[in-house]
Amino acid sequence: MKIKELRLHPQAIADGPLRSSYGLHAPYALRTIVELITTDGITGISETYGGDKPLAALEALRSRVVGMSPFDLTRLWQDLHRGVDATPDPSGARSQTMLVPGENPLDEASRSFAAVEVACLDAIGQAVNQPICDLVGGRARESAPFSAYLFYKHAGGGGMGDDARDDKYGECLSPETIVRQCKSFVAEYGFEEIKLKAGVLEPEAEIETIKALRREFGPKYPLRIDPNCAWSVDTSVKVGLALAEELSGGGYLEDPCAGLDGMAKVRKRLLAEGVGTLFASNVATTCFAHVPQARDLDAVQIILSDPHYWGGIRKQKQLSELCEVLGLGLSMHSNNHLGVSMMTMAHAACASPHLSHACDTHYPWQTEVDEVVEGGRVPIVNGKVAIPERGGLGVKLDYDQVARGVERYNKLSYKKRDDEAEMRKHVDPNWKRVLPRW
Amino acid sequence: MKIKELRLHPQAIADGPLRSSYGLHAPYALRTIVELITTDGITGISETYGGDKPLAALEALRSRVVGMSPFDLTRLWQDLHRGVDATPDPSGARSQTMLVPGENPLDEASRSFAAVEVACLDAIGQAVNQPICDLVGGRARESAPFSAYLFYKHAGGGGMGDDARDDKYGECLSPETIVRQCKSFVAEYGFEEIKLKAGVLEPEAEIETIKALRREFGPKYPLRIDPNCAWSVDTSVKVGLALAEELSGGGYLEDPCAGLDGMAKVRKRLLAEGVGTLFASNVATTCFAHVPQARDLDAVQIILSDPHYWGGIRKQKQLSELCEVLGLGLSMHSNNHLGVSMMTMAHAACASPHLSHACDTHYPWQTEVDEVVEGGRVPIVNGKVAIPERGGLGVKLDYDQVARGVERYNKLSYKKRDDEAEMRKHVDPNWKRVLPRW
Repeated sequence: MKIKELRLHPQAIADGPLRSSYGLHAPYALRTIVELITTDGITGISETYGGDKPLAALEALRSRVVGMSPFDLTRLWQDLHRGVDATPDPSGARSQTMLVPGENPLDEASRSFAAVEVACLDAIGQAVNQPICDLVGGRARESAPFSAYLFYKHAGGGGMGDDARDDKYGECLSPETIVRQCKSFVAEYGFEEIKLKAGVLEPEAEIETIKALRREFGPKYPLRIDPNCAWSVDTSVKVGLALAEELSGGGYLEDPCAGLDGMAKVRKRLLAEGVGTLFASNVATTCFAHVPQARDLDAVQIILSDPHYWGGIRKQKQLSELCEVLGLGLSMHSNNHLGVSMMTMAHAACASPHLSHACDTHYPWQTEVDEVVEGGRVPIVNGKVAIPERGGLGVKLDYDQVARGVERYNKLSYKKRDDEAEMRKHVDPNWKRVLPRW
Repeated sequence: MKIKELRLHPQAIADGPLRSSYGLHAPYALRTIVELITTDGITGISETYGGDKPLAALEALRSRVVGMSPFDLTRLWQDLHRGVDATPDPSGARSQTMLVPGENPLDEASRSFAAVEVACLDAIGQAVNQPICDLVGGRARESAPFSAYLFYKHAGGGGMGDDARDDKYGECLSPETIVRQCKSFVAEYGFEEIKLKAGVLEPEAEIETIKALRREFGPKYPLRIDPNCAWSVDTSVKVGLALAEELSGGGYLEDPCAGLDGMAKVRKRLLAEGVGTLFASNVATTCFAHVPQARDLDAVQIILSDPHYWGGIRKQKQLSELCEVLGLGLSMHSNNHLGVSMMTMAHAACASPHLSHACDTHYPWQTEVDEVVEGGRVPIVNGKVAIPERGGLGVKLDYDQVARGVERYNKLSYKKRDDEAEMRKHVDPNWKRVLPRW
């Protein structure tokens, strides 16, 4: 079995005006659907970051990938990573702190590799009739747990003009409206852990939001808050102290400030005050080289993986095993995505023996209208995504839907995620991302 | 595909009177050949440690293994490791320091798992027509490098009575005879790295042996010496200083003294003298939990894996990736073995992206007479074992030979490796293993 063809389908998917420390989500998020067709007629698929740059990076791999065996992945990894500089930079000055995920040039090789790897595993899994999580060593669990991912947002459901989506949640820029958003998430999807994307309002308002969530849902729903480095060390300590109780018992504080050095300082000061809140990161730790340093500095106790830029499903499993050996926790980062990524994340989570927290997912923010998976949206039941009894990822493409996504993409004036530009366009013409903001 | 049958074939294989700090090798070494027969008629095979205890441990798994899918390995690992105490003990007081590999009760779960895992991967590999190293992620190299493994020995080629083997090397208890042994090894197998099993003669004589090997073979042949904890911290420092030049440039000092604490002291004292000799271990580091501690203490810079007791081929790959992330080297431990283990080690090494040193192997000490692999001995060419173009391990069993091995095993008066008892029987009636001896 060899790969005889690579097909790339850029996608634009409607997305609401969600806020984060990066700025504002545009009316469409960008994704790429990848197809690898093998010589025995099997089509393996994957989904990855979108926009012209990730697309061009995949396009550049065409001659390397066409003709290779889908089993021959280690050498592809080695070829792509030759010369990649993975030297850790604990100061947080690196581009990984400022750029949105998918735009970090340090991840490019692992990102492109992952898109190929998942499609290869999908093809092999279909050929041998095994779900990917079993193919790579055997599932550790039957379904993958996900958490509610709450966002401060403006009014609007995403999309533009005739293609605008309904706004299910309305404006959510206060503790009360976030609690309302969360009730809807929990009722519809059965999530049992809750994450708030923060770094948007004054820290006091965000503290109040977390406290309101705790009052409403109680300690059975662990809480996590993620300001994406919007806070200084001092502000991080202040928030950590204020939320000591609310973030305990299965919750965590994610990337409060920039860099491992900064997080280590916050951790040390909180511990000195008797507060053992765990820190998670997907900004200061974006590749394997960062993990031992995160542990040595005690800056991060929970690594947030992402099969899309850590290098695919086997690399996610490797990270799970690494975290277990190093005594670190593991959870999963997400970006707006379609059903192919949903299943990739589910297989990655089920293949990982060690997974200490439910994974993030933006999936509830997308809609059926844009779904490219045959049969429609992947169901989330009791907060979990089950592994289908089918070989590979367990989902197929709906090609009409893929074509519609390409059409939407081609019509768009932007081909790169730029949350800062969106903020200037829609909220504040002078807005700039400043770290730390508070 | 399910496993419908488990077959176990205990083997006795002739072995010369080789010496180590454990004592003396018996006339026969013990192994176990494992067969798993699947519902679609494929037979997956593996080889593991021998004797009644490892055999009973595998026998105890029968009801767990029969009926399972050969893909469902993570849950088997989890089931077998529930309650296993992997707490590191850096003092070296644990049984792992005193017991020969294969007899360490801490390894039992990983050892039994490995025997099942390799047979499952062999079956799957045959079913999908992929060599195991490709099945588990893709080979990192085409062939596996091995080192010459030199032993001080008494006269005799192993086996007993009519079944005695020729003595190819004669008595080797001096620098000159070890150099002669090595010339024969290098000429016959093309090895490019050289290991001396030490802890047998006075340290001065062993230093002289290494110096004689360096004089004969020059710096192109990296040298390693392994006294299996026979030395005190002071003696280890003395030998380390005496062999500073000889063990540099790709060589290493393996388990000079007991425990990570002891090795850390030696390392520190050598570094203070400007000697950067690398330390390897398969005694102080026998499972994943030991690795971070080995690094934190800077006690071990090169982990010696062994797919037979670390948990199989995927675990060997995991260890390779762990060592790469932690900046540690990786090489491979060996015990007397047949061709099935040879191929297991070759696949494990080829599946490992990071492998800093050639693997150990006792294979040259065994003979065609005992080989259970169809077509005879696995060739070592230019010090390397190549991966055959066949699915799975790439070797099949010769059932007549397997039956002969079982017969030999059943005739034996001992069913457990006991090098101390052999020393008392043949060399010194009062011999006891004492650590440190010097």
